[in-house]
Amino acid sequence: MSRKLVTVIPGLKQEYRGRIEACARAHGFEALFFESAAQALPHLADAEIVFGQDGRLAQSAPKLGWLCTPSAGINQFTGEGAFLNPNALLTNSSGAYGVTISEHVIMVTLEILRRQREYEAIVTRREWRRDLAVRSLRGIRALLLGTGDIGCEVALRLRAFGPESIVGVNRSGRNPRMLFDRTETEEKLDELLPACELAVLSLPDTPGTFRMLDKRRLGLLPDGAVIVNVGRGSVIDEEALARELASRRLYAALDVFKQEPLNRDDPLWDCPNLILTPHVSGNMTLPYTIDRIVQMFLEDLEHYCRGERLAHLVDIRRGY
Amino acid sequence: MSRKLVTVIPGLKQEYRGRIEACARAHGFEALFFESAAQALPHLADAEIVFGQDGRLAQSAPKLGWLCTPSAGINQFTGEGAFLNPNALLTNSSGAYGVTISEHVIMVTLEILRRQREYEAIVTRREWRRDLAVRSLRGIRALLLGTGDIGCEVALRLRAFGPESIVGVNRSGRNPRMLFDRTETEEKLDELLPACELAVLSLPDTPGTFRMLDKRRLGLLPDGAVIVNVGRGSVIDEEALARELASRRLYAALDVFKQEPLNRDDPLWDCPNLILTPHVSGNMTLPYTIDRIVQMFLEDLEHYCRGERLAHLVDIRRGY
Repeated sequence: MSRKLVTVIPGLKQEYRGRIEACARAHGFEALFFESAAQALPHLADAEIVFGQDGRLAQSAPKLGWLCTPSAGINQFTGEGAFLNPNALLTNSSGAYGVTISEHVIMVTLEILRRQREYEAIVTRREWRRDLAVRSLRGIRALLLGTGDIGCEVALRLRAFGPESIVGVNRSGRNPRMLFDRTETEEKLDELLPACELAVLSLPDTPGTFRMLDKRRLGLLPDGAVIVNVGRGSVIDEEALARELASRRLYAALDVFKQEPLNRDDPLWDCPNLILTPHVSGNMTLPYTIDRIVQMFLEDLEHYCRGERLAHLVDIRRGY
Repeated sequence: MSRKLVTVIPGLKQEYRGRIEACARAHGFEALFFESAAQALPHLADAEIVFGQDGRLAQSAPKLGWLCTPSAGINQFTGEGAFLNPNALLTNSSGAYGVTISEHVIMVTLEILRRQREYEAIVTRREWRRDLAVRSLRGIRALLLGTGDIGCEVALRLRAFGPESIVGVNRSGRNPRMLFDRTETEEKLDELLPACELAVLSLPDTPGTFRMLDKRRLGLLPDGAVIVNVGRGSVIDEEALARELASRRLYAALDVFKQEPLNRDDPLWDCPNLILTPHVSGNMTLPYTIDRIVQMFLEDLEHYCRGERLAHLVDIRRGY
């Protein structure tokens, strides 16, 4: 019986299936493809490799050697007993989403600064009005919480707009690819927030990031500051932020939330000064993104089959 | 009697008035400020310098030596008899709008590529749906018709998004600041359009640009191509474009129109695949823009008073 590789990525195109199948076969693996975790669960008893993002996949594969999630986030794999086989390796697809998420960040930030939703309402009424005072990315003081792939791709694009400063905040304080004017650790956050006109959050959901932007820290931001969250909703105190938005003191673009899907009666749906999107900044519909995800998986499939260290290993205790 | 400088810029802040007044006085000019051309007209009999954009100002100042318009466009000053004094000099404020207009261009292009209006409708219905296939600026083939200040600032920002190519089209074929992968003259347009996924128009209104994108050339664009017009509406055949949008073959973001304000019964108001804005991409509400406009005017005021050549002179016959 050959070794088994199970892929659970809904809508995965034949082109990608073919590439995975060819690579799997070359290394003595049988490749199975499913559209949902429910369909895959009965076939996991002897699965050695799983390529999918549903937490049940790890809990149902006793012989799992390696799971690769096509997501960047991994919190469904970090809890006690997340893996039926505790020796299984975990890789994620961090690095595939920076391009699409950074485009989302630039778009929604400009929509807020240029008051595009207000102009849209004006045009819907067939009115001709041009005098709303807009703001610019030029000369803006930006703070990027999270300096991984997403933070770096945002910094690259933001730089072209001539900001006054791009400061990164991360755990190490190091400056990846020197894309930031400087980087600081979280301990400096209270000093950084009063000068921050744009805060972009691309942080994972970990105990260390939980409510990093709480009510007190939101209060440190200057009037008119813009918060863009494309990481995880748990990083912001949503109730405190909703109050700051309702009072029209701050602006935000939220693509991620404490609970997703957002409850139908959540006050955020109707919140002013907010651009709300249903976790679409980094989905897999962009060809570049799915290209990168499959390419990174195949690279690590080669590593795995040669007994080499996987390139995209996640540190489960660290949480990303 | 001192020489007279008349400024007609509605809402001009005291800070800028003070700077103009100080510079004027230093050169023996009396500086007058008006909120509208109608208010200014009775005071133009002995005006030597006018800083304003209303065409009537040039027609009503017999002793005019120099008019500076705070706009980039100058077509109100190019017709027969536009200047009562045919020896008057004309400068414009091209160079002040590239920053704000390029931000508009990137914003609306991303809104179209990322289907942001559709996501907005989904969220308005409190639905949670994430599967609309988006497109990216990464790998896009862009054609920039017009390579002046606006085209250059667009190219600078677009480059950071990793396009496949940025090709400029202008009259000379030269490549300003080497910001374009290459530049071509209009003669090559028919060859360039079939490969163009994004066309950004920042052309002035001249006989040479009239309907440069006519029905036939619109038909040369590939399915799904995006047209962004921030120059002048006369450059596109609006009726032909409306048909391409109505059939959902092309996408467009129009900030300028054949006639402005747009008629209340114009079919463009309700056109699908179109982001319509009321000529706001380059208005004067951004502090940077008005800063630059006043700074360029004061530079030329120094030149004028010293008898030097003005830096922002317009070639009226060329039209920009």
